[in-house]
Amino acid sequence: MTPWIEIEGNVTAPKGFKAAGIAAGLKPSGSPDLALIYSEVEAIAAGIFTKSQVRAACVDYCRQNLAERPGCQAILVNSGQANAATGQQGWDDAQASAQWVASALNIEPSSVLLASTGVIGQRIAVGPMEAGIPKVVAALSETGGDDASKAILTTDLITKSIALETEINGRPVRIGGISKGSGMIHPNMATMLAFVTCDAAVSPHIWQEMTARAGSRSFNQITVDGDTSTNDSLFALTNGQSRTPAITQWGPEAEVLEGMLTAVCIHLAKAIARDGEGATCLIEVQVTGAPSEEGAQSIAKTIAGSSLVKSAIFGRDPNWGRIAGAAGRAGVAFDQNDLCVTLGDIALMKDGQPLPFDRDAANAYLCQAAAGDYLKTDTVLIQVSVGDGPGSGTAWGCDLSYDYVKINAEYTT
Amino acid sequence: MTPWIEIEGNVTAPKGFKAAGIAAGLKPSGSPDLALIYSEVEAIAAGIFTKSQVRAACVDYCRQNLAERPGCQAILVNSGQANAATGQQGWDDAQASAQWVASALNIEPSSVLLASTGVIGQRIAVGPMEAGIPKVVAALSETGGDDASKAILTTDLITKSIALETEINGRPVRIGGISKGSGMIHPNMATMLAFVTCDAAVSPHIWQEMTARAGSRSFNQITVDGDTSTNDSLFALTNGQSRTPAITQWGPEAEVLEGMLTAVCIHLAKAIARDGEGATCLIEVQVTGAPSEEGAQSIAKTIAGSSLVKSAIFGRDPNWGRIAGAAGRAGVAFDQNDLCVTLGDIALMKDGQPLPFDRDAANAYLCQAAAGDYLKTDTVLIQVSVGDGPGSGTAWGCDLSYDYVKINAEYTT
Repeated sequence: MTPWIEIEGNVTAPKGFKAAGIAAGLKPSGSPDLALIYSEVEAIAAGIFTKSQVRAACVDYCRQNLAERPGCQAILVNSGQANAATGQQGWDDAQASAQWVASALNIEPSSVLLASTGVIGQRIAVGPMEAGIPKVVAALSETGGDDASKAILTTDLITKSIALETEINGRPVRIGGISKGSGMIHPNMATMLAFVTCDAAVSPHIWQEMTARAGSRSFNQITVDGDTSTNDSLFALTNGQSRTPAITQWGPEAEVLEGMLTAVCIHLAKAIARDGEGATCLIEVQVTGAPSEEGAQSIAKTIAGSSLVKSAIFGRDPNWGRIAGAAGRAGVAFDQNDLCVTLGDIALMKDGQPLPFDRDAANAYLCQAAAGDYLKTDTVLIQVSVGDGPGSGTAWGCDLSYDYVKINAEYTT
Repeated sequence: MTPWIEIEGNVTAPKGFKAAGIAAGLKPSGSPDLALIYSEVEAIAAGIFTKSQVRAACVDYCRQNLAERPGCQAILVNSGQANAATGQQGWDDAQASAQWVASALNIEPSSVLLASTGVIGQRIAVGPMEAGIPKVVAALSETGGDDASKAILTTDLITKSIALETEINGRPVRIGGISKGSGMIHPNMATMLAFVTCDAAVSPHIWQEMTARAGSRSFNQITVDGDTSTNDSLFALTNGQSRTPAITQWGPEAEVLEGMLTAVCIHLAKAIARDGEGATCLIEVQVTGAPSEEGAQSIAKTIAGSSLVKSAIFGRDPNWGRIAGAAGRAGVAFDQNDLCVTLGDIALMKDGQPLPFDRDAANAYLCQAAAGDYLKTDTVLIQVSVGDGPGSGTAWGCDLSYDYVKINAEYTT
């Protein structure tokens, strides 16, 4: 039993947040393409960004802003153009966008964060952007999270959102989030973006530390095709509007809040992996017994990202040898005689040796998982133990299908 | 102009080497499955092996043998069973195999090296192996390299071999090689194996250093699907039978020999990438201007291994944004404003900005490359510059096609 429950809504579930999403004409298709997330008071903000050397202007802009001051009152998100590889012009466009939002909301430009997703190498359509900002500001509402979750999508097939609630000191505290992503898919459509809101009162350094850890256990542990985007960003805001006592040090309240934040991030991250291009199922890889959490995460992510494991699962083939092979090449030391592999509840390998197993049952498990309910029984569970070390970690991916190749080969930029 | 020429043959081209390949009944199909490479005198031996934590018994056996003494007179190679994840039994089978070879050739068991490729988790078929060894010894000949090149294959579509010749001190010196590999493809068929022979006289430490460097610039720079095998091995033998003066220190002769060894390894490595599962063309990525050779190699390999770049090339799509994105995530620092990307002779990106280019010409280049001659015009050349650093490096891969997914999903183990 977790000390929180799932509730309706997403980024506007926590107190004091509004959001909106509109079609501002940035996308040629006329689909929703401009989202705004707004906090009535300035929120503590933490951000995690792509480690790529090739980055969008908005990523550099936000990183610089947050380094100066961990505060934010509004996040403007556009889809359609990634504003990456756009040089000085891209930087100027980012600054202008922040200025327009600040004017429309009557706040400081330094309190505005930005995210973009879409075609790399294209400037933001600044005309529609400038005209759209007053409209998206006017559309802000306490139920606008769903519209925002639609306006940030590119090739995603579904919206991705969640909200959780716990109690601190007898009062409700909520965390909500939305995300997008389905593969790097650039230069047409790009990027993983996630926006998380919270109404707890928390010290900036604690919030930032929680966000970093939650990100490393969720978004940093998913893979669709191994290609990091130029625009990847996670933003987490907390605005104190729950009116609960401020969390200024580590203790039981901080632990619950971090647990809930991690749960929100994991849900949003899993939803991205499940919506991976061409995917027919989610793959969850749990690794235990590693020397460290980092080592376990690395093994789990290597297995989840292996093209051979992914295509075997698409073929509903309980191919334990590929799982063992991927574990072995993760760059983490272990004794191969300790290796155990389980698929669902079927043991395939123990102490480094293959086990006889019911191949039909294993195939049936894979077929059933692939036909199962979204983010519940549509998940293929692979459990791997590499020894008796204290480190455990989980990663998520999806299978590799003909449609992945089709989407990425047949699309003409 | 290189100071060497290509000649007929492969591992038996250098003086004093014999080889053979037979069908010994290890493969259910009845295809050739047992190869032997033999030097009339004990050769200096260098080996590079998989870094996987999950390794075949023969890998551990050879690594241990070569650590004790860098000498070898015979290499026995079986296809059909990988002898990986086979525990103590696998180790005993490896030792017995070496003993049988030593007895049949009347040499020391410690002078025998072993390589296996095939189904992971399966013991070597020791009955056929024991019965086959006298036959493969009897079949040894100075023209047996072609038979050996066939007997080491698994799902490969073509044999892979080369021989080069130079002159040292007025006398011919030759290096020949064979290789196999087409994807990890385990647990059915596995592994990259390469065997290189040379008749130069070289000090062990110089030969080992050359081999390590040649391996890092060839086999370590190819990728088909990112999955390191449990059995990967490169063996390089040099037996002094050219009767040229011994190379005991670095100088012009050592440089030529290392250049020729590297050329042999690059040819064999490229042949593996070109024969990658489902591939329709070879991709060569040349990176310059990096802080170091290692950094350039890393960027090149990341681009060559990117699923998005690979599927774009399968779709004949000059998708420069994916190339830039992959370069950015290689973990090597550079200024994105220095990034230049060229496809064939068409400049796509300069100083971090996209260039206007003739899309039809770029598409035509990709279509022509994919229809071109083996290892010559069937190569898509991507050149990337990341600054003005001294580091350059090259990597090879292949495109990602429907057939890759088909081969790896539809095969039932």
